[in-house]
Order: sequence, then C-alpha cells, then structure tokens
Amino acid sequence: MKLIHYLDQEAEVVDMDGAKGTVIRHIITEKDGAPNFNLRVLTIEPGGLSPNHSHPWEHEFFILSGDGIGEVDNKEAKVRQGDVIYVPPDVQHCIRATT
Amino acid sequence: MKLIHYLDQEAEVVDMDGAKGTVIRHIITEKDGAPNFNLRVLTIEPGGLSPNHSHPWEHEFFILSGDGIGEVDNKEAKVRQGDVIYVPPDVQHCIRATT
Repeated sequence: MKLIHYLDQEAEVVDMDGAKGTVIRHIITEKDGAPNFNLRVLTIEPGGLSPNHSHPWEHEFFILSGDGIGEVDNKEAKVRQGDVIYVPPDVQHCIRATT
Repeated sequence: MKLIHYLDQEAEVVDMDGAKGTVIRHIITEKDGAPNFNLRVLTIEPGGLSPNHSHPWEHEFFILSGDGIGEVDNKEAKVRQGDVIYVPPDVQHCIRATT
C-alpha cells in the first residue's frame, strides 16, 4: 500500500518562467504505477502564482485551503476552499493565491 | 470554465453491497470531457464504510478531513487529513471512517 501524508513528500520550487512563491509536491505519479493521472499538491504563497500556460494534459484542481483567482481560457474567477476547477487539455490556465 | 464548489454537486447514496453511511459526489467526469480521471468526493459518516471491492480502474485518495482506516490488498492503516492513498487497478480496497 502506498500511503503518504502530502507534507512528507519533498516540496520542489516551481521554476517555470513567471512562477512566483509556488512549490509543488508530486505525490502519486507514473513511478507509483499510476496509469492515468498524477496527484500533485501545489502550495502558493499570498501574492504568488503559477503563470499562464498550457499543455496536452488536463488538470482537475481541488482547492484545499485559502483564496485565489483561477484563470482558464482567459476567464477569471475567484476560488476558495472546496472549489473544483477543470482545465481541459491544451487550454491556457493560471492560478494565483490571494491568501 | 467549469468551476464548482463540491458541496454544490448533488450527493448520491452509495448503495453498493455492504456500504454504510456513505455518499458520493461526482464532480468531474467524462461528461465534462475529462479524458483520464474522475474527480469524486466521498463523505463517510463516523462508523460508515465503502466496502472491500476492486475494479479495473485505479484510485488516488486524498483525505480532506477526519480520521479513518484504509485497507488495500488486505493491509490496514490509519488515515487522517492530508494523507494520500494509491490503490492500483484491480486491487481490493476498503475505506472506513472513525470520525
């Protein structure tokens, strides 16, 4: 059984161009044999962001805590704990934290 | 943009044989165009459970709150907020809530 607390996974600084105050933890990946989906936890400082970008894989975001702004295909919306955002493959997206 | 608070998704009672005190919300599914993974939220009452079963698709559990017992391939472990469990395809698993 793979069982891990997400804080026990090493955090890596997101160094993508334009990223700010953001770390990522890769919790479940293909290294675990996961055939379809990587489970990752992003932690974004107040004022930080993961910049606008796109890629061929989808995202399914669940906001664990805090408040921020999600942007998908140039549409912005406030997000808060418990919100879910779907980002289809190849669609531009960005997430910023206000708290 | 699909943006939804998980509590705004209708909860369905899990009526699988042996299930108890468990509801499920299907938040992101193939109906949203998601190509690989369904994002679902289970809510299990204290003493409730999703019974031992298996299926060809994997699970990637993130414990949002509460305490419980996860069982994968007949191995049990306590789980708590922030824990992640990976259940590979076709492996027996069960989850029970203590709180």
